Amino acid sequence: MIIRKNEHWFKMLFIWKGSVLPQLLPRLLLLFLISVCIVYLKGKLFDFKIPLNPAPFTLFGIALALFLGFRNNASYDRFWEARKIWGALLNDTRSLARQALTMSGYPPEGKEVDTFIHYLIAFTYALKHQLRGTDASKDLDKRLSPELSERLKPAIYKPILLLKEMGFWVQKAKADGKIDSIIQASFDQNLDKLSDIVGGCERIASTPIPYTYRILLHRTVYIYCFLLPFGFVDSLSWLTPFIVIFIAYTFVALEAIADEIEEPFGTEPNDLALNAMTTMIETTLLEMGGKPLPVATQNPEGILN
Amino acid sequence: MIIRKNEHWFKMLFIWKGSVLPQLLPRLLLLFLISVCIVYLKGKLFDFKIPLNPAPFTLFGIALALFLGFRNNASYDRFWEARKIWGALLNDTRSLARQALTMSGYPPEGKEVDTFIHYLIAFTYALKHQLRGTDASKDLDKRLSPELSERLKPAIYKPILLLKEMGFWVQKAKADGKIDSIIQASFDQNLDKLSDIVGGCERIASTPIPYTYRILLHRTVYIYCFLLPFGFVDSLSWLTPFIVIFIAYTFVALEAIADEIEEPFGTEPNDLALNAMTTMIETTLLEMGGKPLPVATQNPEGILN
Amino acid sequence: MIIRKNEHWFKMLFIWKGSVLPQLLPRLLLLFLISVCIVYLKGKLFDFKIPLNPAPFTLFGIALALFLGFRNNASYDRFWEARKIWGALLNDTRSLARQALTMSGYPPEGKEVDTFIHYLIAFTYALKHQLRGTDASKDLDKRLSPELSERLKPAIYKPILLLKEMGFWVQKAKADGKIDSIIQASFDQNLDKLSDIVGGCERIASTPIPYTYRILLHRTVYIYCFLLPFGFVDSLSWLTPFIVIFIAYTFVALEAIADEIEEPFGTEPNDLALNAMTTMIETTLLEMGGKPLPVATQNPEGILN
Amino acid sequence: MIIRKNEHWFKMLFIWKGSVLPQLLPRLLLLFLISVCIVYLKGKLFDFKIPLNPAPFTLFGIALALFLGFRNNASYDRFWEARKIWGALLNDTRSLARQALTMSGYPPEGKEVDTFIHYLIAFTYALKHQLRGTDASKDLDKRLSPELSERLKPAIYKPILLLKEMGFWVQKAKADGKIDSIIQASFDQNLDKLSDIVGGCERIASTPIPYTYRILLHRTVYIYCFLLPFGFVDSLSWLTPFIVIFIAYTFVALEAIADEIEEPFGTEPNDLALNAMTTMIETTLLEMGGKPLPVATQNPEGILN
Amino acid sequence: MIIRKNEHWFKMLFIWKGSVLPQLLPRLLLLFLISVCIVYLKGKLFDFKIPLNPAPFTLFGIALALFLGFRNNASYDRFWEARKIWGALLNDTRSLARQALTMSGYPPEGKEVDTFIHYLIAFTYALKHQLRGTDASKDLDKRLSPELSERLKPAIYKPILLLKEMGFWVQKAKADGKIDSIIQASFDQNLDKLSDIVGGCERIASTPIPYTYRILLHRTVYIYCFLLPFGFVDSLSWLTPFIVIFIAYTFVALEAIADEIEEPFGTEPNDLALNAMTTMIETTLLEMGGKPLPVATQNPEGILN
Repeated sequence: MIIRKNEHWFKMLFIWKGSVLPQLLPRLLLLFLISVCIVYLKGKLFDFKIPLNPAPFTLFGIALALFLGFRNNASYDRFWEARKIWGALLNDTRSLARQALTMSGYPPEGKEVDTFIHYLIAFTYALKHQLRGTDASKDLDKRLSPELSERLKPAIYKPILLLKEMGFWVQKAKADGKIDSIIQASFDQNLDKLSDIVGGCERIASTPIPYTYRILLHRTVYIYCFLLPFGFVDSLSWLTPFIVIFIAYTFVALEAIADEIEEPFGTEPNDLALNAMTTMIETTLLEMGGKPLPVATQNPEGILN
Repeated sequence: MIIRKNEHWFKMLFIWKGSVLPQLLPRLLLLFLISVCIVYLKGKLFDFKIPLNPAPFTLFGIALALFLGFRNNASYDRFWEARKIWGALLNDTRSLARQALTMSGYPPEGKEVDTFIHYLIAFTYALKHQLRGTDASKDLDKRLSPELSERLKPAIYKPILLLKEMGFWVQKAKADGKIDSIIQASFDQNLDKLSDIVGGCERIASTPIPYTYRILLHRTVYIYCFLLPFGFVDSLSWLTPFIVIFIAYTFVALEAIADEIEEPFGTEPNDLALNAMTTMIETTLLEMGGKPLPVATQNPEGILN
Repeated sequence: MIIRKNEHWFKMLFIWKGSVLPQLLPRLLLLFLISVCIVYLKGKLFDFKIPLNPAPFTLFGIALALFLGFRNNASYDRFWEARKIWGALLNDTRSLARQALTMSGYPPEGKEVDTFIHYLIAFTYALKHQLRGTDASKDLDKRLSPELSERLKPAIYKPILLLKEMGFWVQKAKADGKIDSIIQASFDQNLDKLSDIVGGCERIASTPIPYTYRILLHRTVYIYCFLLPFGFVDSLSWLTPFIVIFIAYTFVALEAIADEIEEPFGTEPNDLALNAMTTMIETTLLEMGGKPLPVATQNPEGILN
Repeated sequence: MIIRKNEHWFKMLFIWKGSVLPQLLPRLLLLFLISVCIVYLKGKLFDFKIPLNPAPFTLFGIALALFLGFRNNASYDRFWEARKIWGALLNDTRSLARQALTMSGYPPEGKEVDTFIHYLIAFTYALKHQLRGTDASKDLDKRLSPELSERLKPAIYKPILLLKEMGFWVQKAKADGKIDSIIQASFDQNLDKLSDIVGGCERIASTPIPYTYRILLHRTVYIYCFLLPFGFVDSLSWLTPFIVIFIAYTFVALEAIADEIEEPFGTEPNDLALNAMTTMIETTLLEMGGKPLPVATQNPEGILN
Repeated sequence: MIIRKNEHWFKMLFIWKGSVLPQLLPRLLLLFLISVCIVYLKGKLFDFKIPLNPAPFTLFGIALALFLGFRNNASYDRFWEARKIWGALLNDTRSLARQALTMSGYPPEGKEVDTFIHYLIAFTYALKHQLRGTDASKDLDKRLSPELSERLKPAIYKPILLLKEMGFWVQKAKADGKIDSIIQASFDQNLDKLSDIVGGCERIASTPIPYTYRILLHRTVYIYCFLLPFGFVDSLSWLTPFIVIFIAYTFVALEAIADEIEEPFGTEPNDLALNAMTTMIETTLLEMGGKPLPVATQNPEGILN
């Protein structure tokens, strides 16, 4: 995810990094060349004049904008929902840490509470790795007992098994006479929320926007853009390639951004900064537990991932 | 549901499988032929020139796009809400399994917990079969005791009766002195959520978008598309059939997709992958209970149902 | 509410029943006749040529479509929220029935539980009658004790008094030593939800979309449609009445549908099927209680109310 | 708030009361006169012909419609959220009354329960007066003990202090041995909801839509409308004033309605009927408590406030 | 945040303060000058006539309006969600204060309750300072014990540590025998909500709308506006600069407002009035505790921050 301060309105017109322009350049150049050819041939194809004019483009361009708007909205909603779920993860792990510190009956600086807080941190890492399909072992080894870390290795749904461990931790506190059923139920409600968080992430990751929508819109956007020069060559003459590029840039870029943020758990520039968020959760939980904080480093170019 | 990786932008223009194009082809071909005739007759019908021009099409095309956008939104919301409800089903069955494992007082590997976990799995299958109107017997026989499976056969609302069984299971744990009222209430809250999930699915399945909307839009889209060639024949000449097909494809396809995802519990290519989700719930619950996992198979063409 | 299977795309163009066309026919015919007159007079009124052209209609038609879209959205949201509330009613009565069966300490087949389940069924009927302003006596007499049914007759808010009776039922179970405060609180939470359901329905029924919006849009839609023939008579000539009717049909029909589903508790074809939903709730509650089910009959034409 | 039955579609075109037309008449008349002058001068200003044509108006009119749609949506959402919050107030006071009647251990017809129900009624009145900035004393005097009523007089946040009193009432019930901690917690959850209701109302009342939006849109709508006659004088000639008034009426009226419902707690015709809702809450709570009902009077013209 | 009463519709056209006009003036003036030059040169650039006409501007202007509408919506949703979270902060601190007063068992006027209420007030200030990146020390020193205030100084997440202190306060009340586990759980639920509030604010503050969207729209809006004069110079002649400025003002201003309210925790004129809201929370909590109120001052120009 790219974080950048607002710049001067004039400078913003020429920003290169962080825009989707670089990745779209080849397609736009191709379109530019085609437009130049069409202008050169005055819209003729093997002596046949293509009889297009701006009218159907106006009619359809607005319809296309509407449908792109729908696609955009759906993608952005997915992005923002994913962000909300990771926000809930922060809130809920903090709440569970607070419960362990102030309600469990164990001493706040003791070993039991520390174990529980590291369960929460390991849970966060396990979730991140599951969503990105990467290997969680290294991060879990550092934060869990060797025995538990080993037991989790073959598991498909590691965060869920960690939730079960937390449930056993609470059960043990009750068996030790530290808490009663009511406090156990309080913990349990927050564990339920963690279960909702895992499922919410899995839902977004496993169910994209229906594929047919994406093909349909992709196809329509590109055919529209590649027909545009024929429609404007008569009225705009040698200006056609420039105007076509300007219009196509916006349509094509919007489709590309929508495509990118639709899967918010990836590592592309506009995806969620899962690494930064995981470190942040670890930091705040350790601060709550009165432990030394990890050294967080920020990417100097303002790109987190 | 079709799951497919992003492809190259150029290749995506020619994808055939997974688009709605095949199913719309006959209608679009018919429209193409009609357009060709109209061009051949230069827009005349028995010597009467049809005096249409692009103006009313521009006016109305945008209104039509807006109304299609509304229909599209409503359909997609239904699709996504259905997906959210099935996500909640995953979360909630996991939470109940965790409660049975860590709060019920029964041994986590014992027979009682195992029975409960199989209630949850059977519940998932029973819901799927109810929504699709298919026969649940085979799937229930495998996961429930013969006596209970037999008792459920004539029932209309099988998942609800399974919820009642889970309620009795919790009541028995209390009678056995394993849990107190507080833990019972904790189970009960999650059973309430399962009840909400069943009702949510039934709501989407039984209440489509008002029929009048669908007729109105269907009619308007098709009349609009079949009038289009008359409006453009004078200005676009022999290009008319191509432009008409291009515009009609987008409008007609959007209406067709909206129609398909509106009923997300069916087995059409863009519906929810209930089979895959049910298997996934079974897998995660068995993993939690420390049981061997079922062998899941994925359709090689990326289509789940 | 009309429930109908998807038909062939071609047949759907000619459906008469279930569309709003019949009810709009007189207005559209009037508009058609006026258009014919205008064409005959070539847009002249007492020798004055009305100098209209398509430009202002394009400008304003799209604005009108946008505002109609807003109205449509607001109406549909009301319809769908009403449906959600009735869905919650189903979920919550099932949850309360399950609580009575598995948590109350009374025998599941006993008289007390049966009374409670009939309170729930009577509550559903009482709510339906309150929303439709019809007489609840007959339906309550069948399901409640004569004494209670009589006591409810003069009441304004019958469902709320039934909620109070359920509260007393739970209180009596506690006084009988069957349940403790925790189980009482569990029942109480679901009773709170029923209270939310009643209030939610009352809100939708008593607060329509601000009247000024409806007048404004109604007026604009109709003036627009009746001015349309003047704008197109010069360019479309004798085709004007047909095109005008086509455009007007969509605008007027959308406004009419929005008007109809805005009050979802009525008995018009596109309103919610309260009768069917009430019967369905009764069926599922009786099935849960192990009682014989009522005979439900479905309207052969696919119209529920 | 104006409540009116649906009228015949033709009569609705001529409704005067309840529309915003009366309040907009002076501005529209001014615009009409200016348009007439412009037609008379044939678009010339001191011999300079204003070279405007419909093209920029089409371009910008649709953009303006979009932005008005955004403003409209935001205003309507505020209106409907405010209505939802008052609906929640009804639900929650009913739930608290039911709790006092069936869970408090006090006799349902006794003095203590009666006091509590009057706290709830007074709370509703206090909230209404706080939102409208009117004097609550008279309404509180009637429903509270003189001592408490006097104590509330100087308070800024009267409903919140009444919530505290309810908290003390519950605490006393516990001290009297009538309820235990669990029932106290059940009351407390509903008191929390009342706290949310107060804060929700205060939020809507104190945070309007950002002022800059409102200025920007207001300015754009009016400048647009006053430029319109220049754009159409050449093509529409003497019809210009009529068409301009028709278009301007819709734009200006939508902005005026959005402005009105944006602050839903006022006493303008389209604001929420707080008086009627307060009386309704009082009626239902007294009916629950078995007390005689107040005489509610409805405004004969269908306007509630 | 600017709060201003509705003014006369005519006066509102000329408001300067509180509009974004002042900040946009330089850019608009630049555009005006360029337009004047283009009119003077009759659209020629070094003898080459720029062959632009209004058609592509109409096509694209509407698409641009749609995309701006999306950006606007997303920004406004962020603004309103932030306001909702601060509203929840008000509600929840009031609920916790009420719990401390009526459920903690400590005397309502005693020292313990007073400490707790000051924790809540300090929490509010700490959150405000964290979001704005300002120094909280001064505000915390006034409201907390020197020891605690000192301990918080180096902390990164001060509000979270204050939540932990509140948890310890509740634990101590339980150890003192003032409350049981049930009341502790009631406090705990509201502390969980405060945790959600902190996280919600952090989410909005740390995750802006994807940067690529902002660049894309910024670029498109400005290029569009600077091309506009070429498109209209032929048809509008010397009126071009005025019409261009009018259209550009709306587009550019909407983008600027969206940019401003997107980050609602800043101190720009359209951001949330965090200072006023913090003072208001302090006032209502002190009033509940029966303490003397702070003197609140309102900015005479109607601007809060």
